[in-house]
Amino acid sequence: MRRALALGEHGMFTTAPNPRVGCVIVSQGRVIGEGWTQPAGQDHAEIQALKHAAARGHSVRGATAYVTLEPCSHFGRTPPCANALIEAGIKRVIAAMEDPNPLVAGRGLAILRNAGIEVRCGLLEQEAQELNIGFVSRMTRGLPWVRLKVAASLDGKTALHNGVSQWLTGETARADGHAWRARACAILTGIGTVREDNPALTVRAVPTPRQPLRVLVDSQLDVPLSARVLADGHALVACANAPAERAAHLRELGIEVLDLPNPHGKVDLPALMRALGERQINELHVEAGFKLNGSLLREGCVDELLTYLAPSILGDAQGMFNLPALTDLAPRIALRFHDVRLLDDDLRIVARVRRD
Amino acid sequence: MRRALALGEHGMFTTAPNPRVGCVIVSQGRVIGEGWTQPAGQDHAEIQALKHAAARGHSVRGATAYVTLEPCSHFGRTPPCANALIEAGIKRVIAAMEDPNPLVAGRGLAILRNAGIEVRCGLLEQEAQELNIGFVSRMTRGLPWVRLKVAASLDGKTALHNGVSQWLTGETARADGHAWRARACAILTGIGTVREDNPALTVRAVPTPRQPLRVLVDSQLDVPLSARVLADGHALVACANAPAERAAHLRELGIEVLDLPNPHGKVDLPALMRALGERQINELHVEAGFKLNGSLLREGCVDELLTYLAPSILGDAQGMFNLPALTDLAPRIALRFHDVRLLDDDLRIVARVRRD
Repeated sequence: MRRALALGEHGMFTTAPNPRVGCVIVSQGRVIGEGWTQPAGQDHAEIQALKHAAARGHSVRGATAYVTLEPCSHFGRTPPCANALIEAGIKRVIAAMEDPNPLVAGRGLAILRNAGIEVRCGLLEQEAQELNIGFVSRMTRGLPWVRLKVAASLDGKTALHNGVSQWLTGETARADGHAWRARACAILTGIGTVREDNPALTVRAVPTPRQPLRVLVDSQLDVPLSARVLADGHALVACANAPAERAAHLRELGIEVLDLPNPHGKVDLPALMRALGERQINELHVEAGFKLNGSLLREGCVDELLTYLAPSILGDAQGMFNLPALTDLAPRIALRFHDVRLLDDDLRIVARVRRD
Repeated sequence: MRRALALGEHGMFTTAPNPRVGCVIVSQGRVIGEGWTQPAGQDHAEIQALKHAAARGHSVRGATAYVTLEPCSHFGRTPPCANALIEAGIKRVIAAMEDPNPLVAGRGLAILRNAGIEVRCGLLEQEAQELNIGFVSRMTRGLPWVRLKVAASLDGKTALHNGVSQWLTGETARADGHAWRARACAILTGIGTVREDNPALTVRAVPTPRQPLRVLVDSQLDVPLSARVLADGHALVACANAPAERAAHLRELGIEVLDLPNPHGKVDLPALMRALGERQINELHVEAGFKLNGSLLREGCVDELLTYLAPSILGDAQGMFNLPALTDLAPRIALRFHDVRLLDDDLRIVARVRRD
């Protein structure tokens, strides 16, 4: 199953909106077929593994299939994998987890069992959940898994007051950040960041065949049509009662404009999250500024912080999150450190927001 | 040598102002004696190890002694260990590092060589340097190794604006902090912290036979005589042109008062560090507030940051260090992450100030 999970990771940048799945077929103690999910509309992991075994002249009759996710039972863009495993003569299926997709949700395993296949489920389940944290989030909550990236000094400062922040962290941390961008279905930023830095927010430091959707929070649609974030037209802009002609100009560029005002005349961020969930966004990667970061946290939209700490102290400078002063500690945002590691000179801290 | 280093660590809280040293005596592939430095005025590690071997009926003639620091060559509070090793008939001495004490500095090894003992030096030298980082600092620079402890949220906030900061980090981090206090020769704080929290700054959460000297930075000697930091009279207060009668009151309690004004009418912190070095302070542990932390950093007095990050976000709250705003990144305080680990729910980051 560890091998199957590793195979599933091959689909990290490519399977969206489908889950990343790996499959290993074992016969008489020997691996005879391996596969992982191909881009949407192409083969799922199980089909790849069956084809792989066949191509190498192996019979899968009586073999065991290890899959990181319950085989699908429904006709989507491809026919159901459960049927393919039955037809191929697989004898035993070990799944890491049930498919959280309500269209499957145990039905794939039931089909296998009804066909006389021995089925077990739950091996390395937690690792399998992690592999598809965004897909699971979307299927169970209707929301993307929202990961907010922030780079700061050890004293929690992201930039000098004059805006200087370039090269706070090193090359390795930068490439690592691009790998997290690449696995996301969409990258979200705010109009403030566009005004100050005009970033492209594309994946460049790591190879990927797919660029995530760019999502811009821009209440009044102040974004210049020449902004780099809009350059490839693969973008969505959320506004709040903005002038109609501005929306029209954006739509002419093929950009989706969503009008999602909240009672304060700002973009309703939780509503935007739901809208992104409906648009099959599994993982949402946020790279925004102090203000939007704070709003997303305050409004309970953030699931995970991807924090890069540079080995430096900046002193009086820009902080990480615009959040109001508290009078006691109880209402602070509680986290759990999930993963901590050094990336050359920098420190990466993945922390998750506690909901309990 | 690893065993000798581990033995040396037994003296972590007790050997000051002497270095922590471990010694293992090996004969025919068997450990026959072990020792570590006892509190000042009592046996050094080598003597302990020789006695240990003798007490168990082993002869050390022809044996090899592993010592984490060059054996001493001078009559201090105790006679020189080099001579004791010669007289005992030790054949070979492996030392991890030379003694940085200018009274020794290779002379111990020379005495051994002149007596026909085979001598090697440099095995696990870096680990041995770490074990005595404060002693090495004092011997080579005349200054203590200054370790500044700060507990903060992930966004670098130490307390709410109303001062609330209790229980930001958990029990394990708190006990860990006390272990770092216990290994220090002195604990430094400022009058602001005394006014706000009135801490005792003693070691309580871990057992220790010795309480470090309390050092207080208090320009005008505003400290109340009832302050907990002065309770046991084992304290030193640094001031700057403070009223003489206040100094007299403190001295009546057995407290040393140092008048060390700088041109701004504040305490000359680098001069205080030199004074502490002269007073045989090897490791100085700082637990101060935003302002004094910033001053110590700005004036180049800090060698190491002992940072505890709690899994929380506080938002608009008190920062870690009072340092002026920069206009470019070049003059920022550069660090190197030295050790990073989780302590239950909290994260401990030891970072060192880069001098290059």
